[in-house]
Amino acid sequence: MNLDDCKRLDAQDPLAALRDQFLLPEGVIYLDGNSLGVLPRAAPARIAEVVAKEWGEGLIRSWNTANWFDLPQRLGDKVARLIGAARGEVVCTDSTSINLYKVLFAALSQAKTGSRRVVLSERSNFPTDLYIAESLCRERGFTLKLIEADELPAALTEEVAVLMLTHVNYRTGAMHDMKALTAAAHAAGVLAVWDLAHSAGAVPVALNDSDADYAIGCGYKYLNGGPGSPAFVWVHTRHAGRFEQPLSGWWGHAAPFEFTPHYRPAPGVARYLCGTQPIVALAALECGLDTVLAAERFDGTNGSMAALRTKSLALTDAFIALVEARCPDRFALVTPREHHRRGSQVCLAMSGNGPGAYAIVQALIARGVIGDFRAGDSQMPDILRFGFTPLYLGFEDVWRAVEHLVQVIETEEWQRPEFNRKMAVT
Amino acid sequence: MNLDDCKRLDAQDPLAALRDQFLLPEGVIYLDGNSLGVLPRAAPARIAEVVAKEWGEGLIRSWNTANWFDLPQRLGDKVARLIGAARGEVVCTDSTSINLYKVLFAALSQAKTGSRRVVLSERSNFPTDLYIAESLCRERGFTLKLIEADELPAALTEEVAVLMLTHVNYRTGAMHDMKALTAAAHAAGVLAVWDLAHSAGAVPVALNDSDADYAIGCGYKYLNGGPGSPAFVWVHTRHAGRFEQPLSGWWGHAAPFEFTPHYRPAPGVARYLCGTQPIVALAALECGLDTVLAAERFDGTNGSMAALRTKSLALTDAFIALVEARCPDRFALVTPREHHRRGSQVCLAMSGNGPGAYAIVQALIARGVIGDFRAGDSQMPDILRFGFTPLYLGFEDVWRAVEHLVQVIETEEWQRPEFNRKMAVT
Repeated sequence: MNLDDCKRLDAQDPLAALRDQFLLPEGVIYLDGNSLGVLPRAAPARIAEVVAKEWGEGLIRSWNTANWFDLPQRLGDKVARLIGAARGEVVCTDSTSINLYKVLFAALSQAKTGSRRVVLSERSNFPTDLYIAESLCRERGFTLKLIEADELPAALTEEVAVLMLTHVNYRTGAMHDMKALTAAAHAAGVLAVWDLAHSAGAVPVALNDSDADYAIGCGYKYLNGGPGSPAFVWVHTRHAGRFEQPLSGWWGHAAPFEFTPHYRPAPGVARYLCGTQPIVALAALECGLDTVLAAERFDGTNGSMAALRTKSLALTDAFIALVEARCPDRFALVTPREHHRRGSQVCLAMSGNGPGAYAIVQALIARGVIGDFRAGDSQMPDILRFGFTPLYLGFEDVWRAVEHLVQVIETEEWQRPEFNRKMAVT
Repeated sequence: MNLDDCKRLDAQDPLAALRDQFLLPEGVIYLDGNSLGVLPRAAPARIAEVVAKEWGEGLIRSWNTANWFDLPQRLGDKVARLIGAARGEVVCTDSTSINLYKVLFAALSQAKTGSRRVVLSERSNFPTDLYIAESLCRERGFTLKLIEADELPAALTEEVAVLMLTHVNYRTGAMHDMKALTAAAHAAGVLAVWDLAHSAGAVPVALNDSDADYAIGCGYKYLNGGPGSPAFVWVHTRHAGRFEQPLSGWWGHAAPFEFTPHYRPAPGVARYLCGTQPIVALAALECGLDTVLAAERFDGTNGSMAALRTKSLALTDAFIALVEARCPDRFALVTPREHHRRGSQVCLAMSGNGPGAYAIVQALIARGVIGDFRAGDSQMPDILRFGFTPLYLGFEDVWRAVEHLVQVIETEEWQRPEFNRKMAVT
């Protein structure tokens, strides 16, 4: 595959025009949409309108005139289309970590008390998920058990109350089989809680078809909602109205404007709301959601996310092929090669876990090729992480990114001191 | 007092120029800054800059180049100046309800187990605070006991673990003596948790001087941070590094970028951070905080908030005097007349709790005089609530608001059907 092949693929790409939905910085090839999605072209004007009109002019009246109260559900209905959920099953609110606390608390409340005292997860799950689970387990008398992905099915014993997994691993890009693992969990009497942070807007997700129990996810990665944008919560309808989450703020009350001193949870997933939400941030999130929903018209009969998934796999295939062809023996592929096990990112380790991962990422960033670095430990290698968002990336971007990677290595540019200095935030 | 007197008071008002910091809608007299503060003039451009430059251009690099990671503390240091706290003692994050959950959890963790099993609060405390406390008490094996304000000192018995109060009551505008009640609580072995939602930016608060234990507050009322803006948390330094809050997300980790699977809380109040914060909303909040801090230059030797407090009391005095002079026998004053017991709002009930409170508020809103209505129950009357923010209100505004009130009553305008229809959000 050469540059001309890539240009031809771009010319044939039915999704190519979707890139115009975004304001991409000049000279940047952005391979970090799995960490922070790019700015939708519609967002600045919409945000300015919410600020000037809804806040500035409408003031407190905007709760009624701009329907602020409906925003978490209205946006939730849009997210639902991307994750195999139905209208009324999702709300957009708070942060991913806080939403995980809510659903995990509810799941533990419904776990059979006494006999099942284990929450099972993956050692390389996203750390903040593990921190939340660790705290809740200590508080509620459960044990958090961390194992490797391939050990999961055998570990679904009668001691386990909840299986808590991130669908696509943030480090490796490996994707779990949600339907099979949920079925295995249920067969063992275990509830399945899924974090969709690296899935929503990136890969097809079928929550109801997988019969999952609870799910949460992030608004600012593949959903392009802006830095720190509100997250989302989905709860299966068989649980949503039955169990309580403990962050029982006014917005989750059955009748919040009665101002009664006692809490009565709203029916359904609305009880997963808590306090007042950042309205401007919700408006930005809606712009981001609309950029992903714009791809629905290409999905034909294959359902939501089909066209995006096809392109995403073609992009990551191309990146893997080019890296392996042009930087032979330099990197080890961390991300699964099989399509059904791969998310929308490609992670590389240095061959033999040699030095350079951090500095190569910094050298690429200096050239405008923005990926990121994730440090390893005694059990996991340092990785170079590259996210591929098919909404705004093309095959020529992939070719150019690899060309920069080749140059960074061949010129030993990555050895420069400035690329080996640690940043405050990595 | 007549219109000329009011105009003269405005001409002599040293704070009058602070109004230019805001974009106020034409034809509006805004008496609801206790519910949602107005738009700072600096906010639209600052928000647009964060959206276009920090998100759009900087993308993920802005964590370092725009210091996003420092925002909760940097803004917290600004809040600290308004509430009698020191640098490093406050963070801006999440919602008021979620922050209350965190601090109340920490307070209950440190309460002597076994003997003290009661959380004491006021029956008319803000409902969402009671909902959070109700949930936590059930979960942690405590009882939430609600009484009237005047019964509080006698109720500080050896069964009580935590006294949880809102400093200025959202319904009545009555202000507690924080220092005296905290001292009474401590003398009885009880921790004091304060909600400053209607205090921060509205009245002087002296957390350290009062020796309070925990405090939380709202960013979008008197701090003008925008709808659903992040809230804040303060924890006394004697507790901050000692107890854990359960929403243990990555941002509260001692070393978040090591991505270790186990949680280790950050030292001090930083452990009260959880997940990723809405960066655009934090930027808006900073604009709001700066509008209040702009009043510091008028404070002389009396400390932060002194000049604002002097004007606030003069405004509420004027409103009370004008209502009583011009609408005799029509209303009962719900807010305390004594300065040391009054926040920055004035609440009225209908004399004899007669009808009309809701409709009069709606008729005033239609005339551009924006206050709000809070429904009563068997123990509390319906109220008309008017907040007075000295940053952007003057004495002529007070006079005109009362003039509209007089007209709404004298013409019986409030009896019109459109003013008696319930809104979705009240």
